[in-house]
Amino acid sequence: MAIREKVFDVIISCFKRHGAEVIDTPVFELKETLTGKYGEDSKLIYDLKDQGGELLSLRYDLTVPFARYLAMNKLTNIKRYHIAKVYRRDNPAMTRGRYREFYQCDFDIAGQFDPMIPDAECLKIMCEILSSLQIGDFLVKVNDRRILDGMFAICGVPDSKFRTICSSVDKLDKVSWEEVKNEMVGEKGLTPEVADHIGDYVQQHGGVSLVEQLLQDPKLSQNKQALEGLEDLKLLFEYLTLFGIADKISFDLSLARGLDYYTGVIYEAVLLQTPVRPGEEPLGVGSVAAGGRYDGLVGMFDPKGRKVPCVGLSIGVERIFSIVEQRLEALEEKVRTTETQVLVASAQKRLLEERLKLVSELWDAGIKAELLYKKNPKLLNQLQYCEEAGIPLVAIIGGCPKRRPCGRNQKENKPGPLHLLS
Amino acid sequence: MAIREKVFDVIISCFKRHGAEVIDTPVFELKETLTGKYGEDSKLIYDLKDQGGELLSLRYDLTVPFARYLAMNKLTNIKRYHIAKVYRRDNPAMTRGRYREFYQCDFDIAGQFDPMIPDAECLKIMCEILSSLQIGDFLVKVNDRRILDGMFAICGVPDSKFRTICSSVDKLDKVSWEEVKNEMVGEKGLTPEVADHIGDYVQQHGGVSLVEQLLQDPKLSQNKQALEGLEDLKLLFEYLTLFGIADKISFDLSLARGLDYYTGVIYEAVLLQTPVRPGEEPLGVGSVAAGGRYDGLVGMFDPKGRKVPCVGLSIGVERIFSIVEQRLEALEEKVRTTETQVLVASAQKRLLEERLKLVSELWDAGIKAELLYKKNPKLLNQLQYCEEAGIPLVAIIGGCPKRRPCGRNQKENKPGPLHLLS
Repeated sequence: MAIREKVFDVIISCFKRHGAEVIDTPVFELKETLTGKYGEDSKLIYDLKDQGGELLSLRYDLTVPFARYLAMNKLTNIKRYHIAKVYRRDNPAMTRGRYREFYQCDFDIAGQFDPMIPDAECLKIMCEILSSLQIGDFLVKVNDRRILDGMFAICGVPDSKFRTICSSVDKLDKVSWEEVKNEMVGEKGLTPEVADHIGDYVQQHGGVSLVEQLLQDPKLSQNKQALEGLEDLKLLFEYLTLFGIADKISFDLSLARGLDYYTGVIYEAVLLQTPVRPGEEPLGVGSVAAGGRYDGLVGMFDPKGRKVPCVGLSIGVERIFSIVEQRLEALEEKVRTTETQVLVASAQKRLLEERLKLVSELWDAGIKAELLYKKNPKLLNQLQYCEEAGIPLVAIIGGCPKRRPCGRNQKENKPGPLHLLS
Repeated sequence: MAIREKVFDVIISCFKRHGAEVIDTPVFELKETLTGKYGEDSKLIYDLKDQGGELLSLRYDLTVPFARYLAMNKLTNIKRYHIAKVYRRDNPAMTRGRYREFYQCDFDIAGQFDPMIPDAECLKIMCEILSSLQIGDFLVKVNDRRILDGMFAICGVPDSKFRTICSSVDKLDKVSWEEVKNEMVGEKGLTPEVADHIGDYVQQHGGVSLVEQLLQDPKLSQNKQALEGLEDLKLLFEYLTLFGIADKISFDLSLARGLDYYTGVIYEAVLLQTPVRPGEEPLGVGSVAAGGRYDGLVGMFDPKGRKVPCVGLSIGVERIFSIVEQRLEALEEKVRTTETQVLVASAQKRLLEERLKLVSELWDAGIKAELLYKKNPKLLNQLQYCEEAGIPLVAIIGGCPKRRPCGRNQKENKPGPLHLLS
């Protein structure tokens, strides 16, 4: 928890720096609210038992509850963050920070605005947070659902297979193109020619120059959706340059993202492992933040279907917690779990009253203070407690007998002057 | 949420001032963990649907999960706080801050210590928090389960009826003694004499002098349990005097507390309503914090039944939220929901690039800044946004044409000097 709080502090102060307010929604939603929003993953939703009343499910992410909240409260314009736990009946993988109950840290901007300004801010926020956390070098992959869809269309993928081919493409960060191609042809029924055509595109990544190049692509630029996506990406790169983060961003045609609700720009931040041999490309070790634009989701909850365009990001804090924890373990750095500034101790017996009075004065003065809950604790035990808990100061109550000012074996005595040792 | 965060800040900083670390437990527990801990209220527990795997329930409070956590991790010594939501299938009462999902803020001290020192600290924490929150005058009622049990024994209540008679006594803060007596005699089968005997005790409240008086009570002082409870309360009052809070504490023999797991001192803080006529006693308007000692609960989760004595408190924040909210409404005080310090604005068109560059510089410098997501927002709209959001500063980018330094109707122009208006 001590590590978590440090990570949350970095994230929350960034969200606040960007003017977000915080909202909260219940841990459960009506079951029907979650139905049909997560594709295949819907089977991972936790349901509550029917004990009478509404049928409820535990939230699966914070995006769908946010969209439901906007529609229900008829909000058309909000910039909010939400840090809370979500629930998935998945196979846990503790070392990789994958649990059935885990935190999500979401920031979203809802409202009708000029293109790419809020989208660019989301990417800026990701970069600010990942830099502040000092968890190593990272790269943000960017793509656009409209470019993907346009690309599928011109390659000859039937409309009905867009989403499933999208899922295949999304695996390219884990498996080779050959395997993805086999899946497309063998399992999903594309011809090898169509698959190869997709392969020519999705194996490309680069900066704004790749955007420019694809804008010149005779086929792709003829597709309305793809053209819109490419033009928006070009504008996005302009803003990212002004924000000083263009060098962190890679336009990556293989980025597809699993969730159904994205409609425009999508992005995913990956940590880079320092290459073993010089000259090798840095290796991605997994996603730590992701997000995108979802302009249709709020409309699904509005009785009149009124749309509220949204763009947002989610920080994968559980993974970050394990990275920070492993780093601290490697450094053998001990993390304090309390913030106590002073231990009120006594060097002699029968000074409980004085200790209680002093610790109370310290509390009333806003100082973080503790005492041992013993009538007559040994000084050594009190100092050991300081050592273990990392308490920097000890206030020792005790007096010296007249004849032997600092000698050993001093008799029990009335309280004397206060000693503060650091 | 803005109000909640303010209240949490007060509570968390007090918990930290007293040297507590923070822990977290999952929102669900094994169903069997919660079974048999809450008496009649167990029917209010939310269960999860059986989707294969363990049978789970949503936590009902934070105390039982804490005890389970201690036993599972074999911890015998910890001072922790935990702020999280708990779940009860109850009838909500929105105006009184009663919901099915609500926050609890718990602080507990677990471990074998000298008597009444941690108990006194819990009461000190309650008083510190309620004073800091400035929600009005309050009183903390204190009693001890051992005194109640001893009293029932000497009055002639059979052992098997202790808990149910306890429940009747607990109603004395809401209904008259006559009604409670009727319940004891009519529904619970006590003789009128036994009930009257109880009535003589439970209608008493006072300070340490009442403790002294009952220590002289020929019957009560002969009961071992009651005597232990009274002697501990006497010691408690000594410590509370040293902590400077004895005047806030009332020894109240009618305080019984609903939960089964308390074994020693119990307490409950109530807000006092200023009496309408001078001379009248202040009226309690409801409990805002409560707690007590539960020395047997951890042992229930330990395979060998090893006990870990615990004492703790819980702040009823939902009620406090509604009180603070009502007070702010009455004062017509507007609460800012964001912390933005500067809005980056422009007085002319075509300055989006400059706005993006400046806002990015501010973010990088750790300054909380926003801009409107429009290419060419009107100055009036930008200033209005500041007004509505309570943003104290605006940085206006724009230049003056050469001939008309500050005139109206100035033409669009290249960016000029930066104006900061507060």
